[in-house]
Amino acid sequence: MAKATRQQIVEAADNLFYSHGYVQTSFADIAAAVKISRGNFYYHFKTKDEILDAVIDKRLTDRETLLAKWDETSSSPAGRIECFIRIVIVNQAKIMAYGCPVGTLTTELAKLDHASTDKANEIMTLFRDWLIRQFEALGCGGKSEENALHVLTWSQGVATLAQAFKDEAYVHREVDRILEWLAGIVREAQQAGN
Amino acid sequence: MAKATRQQIVEAADNLFYSHGYVQTSFADIAAAVKISRGNFYYHFKTKDEILDAVIDKRLTDRETLLAKWDETSSSPAGRIECFIRIVIVNQAKIMAYGCPVGTLTTELAKLDHASTDKANEIMTLFRDWLIRQFEALGCGGKSEENALHVLTWSQGVATLAQAFKDEAYVHREVDRILEWLAGIVREAQQAGN
Repeated sequence: MAKATRQQIVEAADNLFYSHGYVQTSFADIAAAVKISRGNFYYHFKTKDEILDAVIDKRLTDRETLLAKWDETSSSPAGRIECFIRIVIVNQAKIMAYGCPVGTLTTELAKLDHASTDKANEIMTLFRDWLIRQFEALGCGGKSEENALHVLTWSQGVATLAQAFKDEAYVHREVDRILEWLAGIVREAQQAGN
Repeated sequence: MAKATRQQIVEAADNLFYSHGYVQTSFADIAAAVKISRGNFYYHFKTKDEILDAVIDKRLTDRETLLAKWDETSSSPAGRIECFIRIVIVNQAKIMAYGCPVGTLTTELAKLDHASTDKANEIMTLFRDWLIRQFEALGCGGKSEENALHVLTWSQGVATLAQAFKDEAYVHREVDRILEWLAGIVREAQQAGN
């Protein structure tokens, strides 16, 4: 039971930090969302910073699970990169409302000069390193990091503008564009491999 | 003198909202930065929301001035788009510390469901419409909006990742990439025009 309550708190905080921002979300907001007593709450977390660390850990684990699933279900590296690209469509409604959960938390914590800024950046690093591995498997060699960062740049930019303009057609157009670019990279790698 | 004080307040608030975020910046922080009495401060602004609106107005005017300068100093539309692209290098130090002032405010206000969210988005719209005009002048016709949004997507993505990874070489590499893309667009437009 104690574990379930802790998990509920972290999930509620995760949603509130994403939809309202970290600073704007108070300890009381999280307690109210979980509907537990202050005593029970303090049993699990003493400060908002402790909750933040637990939220970042949860987000890291969730993303690791997602990437591992793609590693299993998609046989080609290009197919896995495409799964990553399509997140902006899969999560479109939330992204249009609140931007990217990873990028917006990173930026918010950096502005606060918060002690957990580096920890939050680890999620971005997780995506980067996973994308590097896919481009390496694709045969991009020394260009793998550059290509990985290009995809990550694109995804962050799309999230910010999807949120600002709320234009679904734009998101789909940008997905088509980057998939076209990816197809070019695959062709190049195949030609170099022959 | 009254005008100068008002201007000082808005400039201090602009910097604080950018470097620490809107929510995190208090009325008292801004007064302390400007070093004026509470009475003098209240003479100019009654609420933080009023200051926010003045900051957004200032940012809009600043960007309009910058774009007008590029319209004057650069004779070709491609040269003007390149000026826009190079902002991420010109403002690199600040972007690495705090991200893009336009994108991060837009996201923060959206999460707050703040009444000035649409007003903040006008800066993004200003950039978009200016870029559309440049691509139209380049001869991109029906592709102008798509290309404009592609450049804006790129710039927002670069700002977010420059802030997360603080990697100067990455920023320069991404600028080279998008300039190469732009050169391709210019060639296409010239061929279509012949």
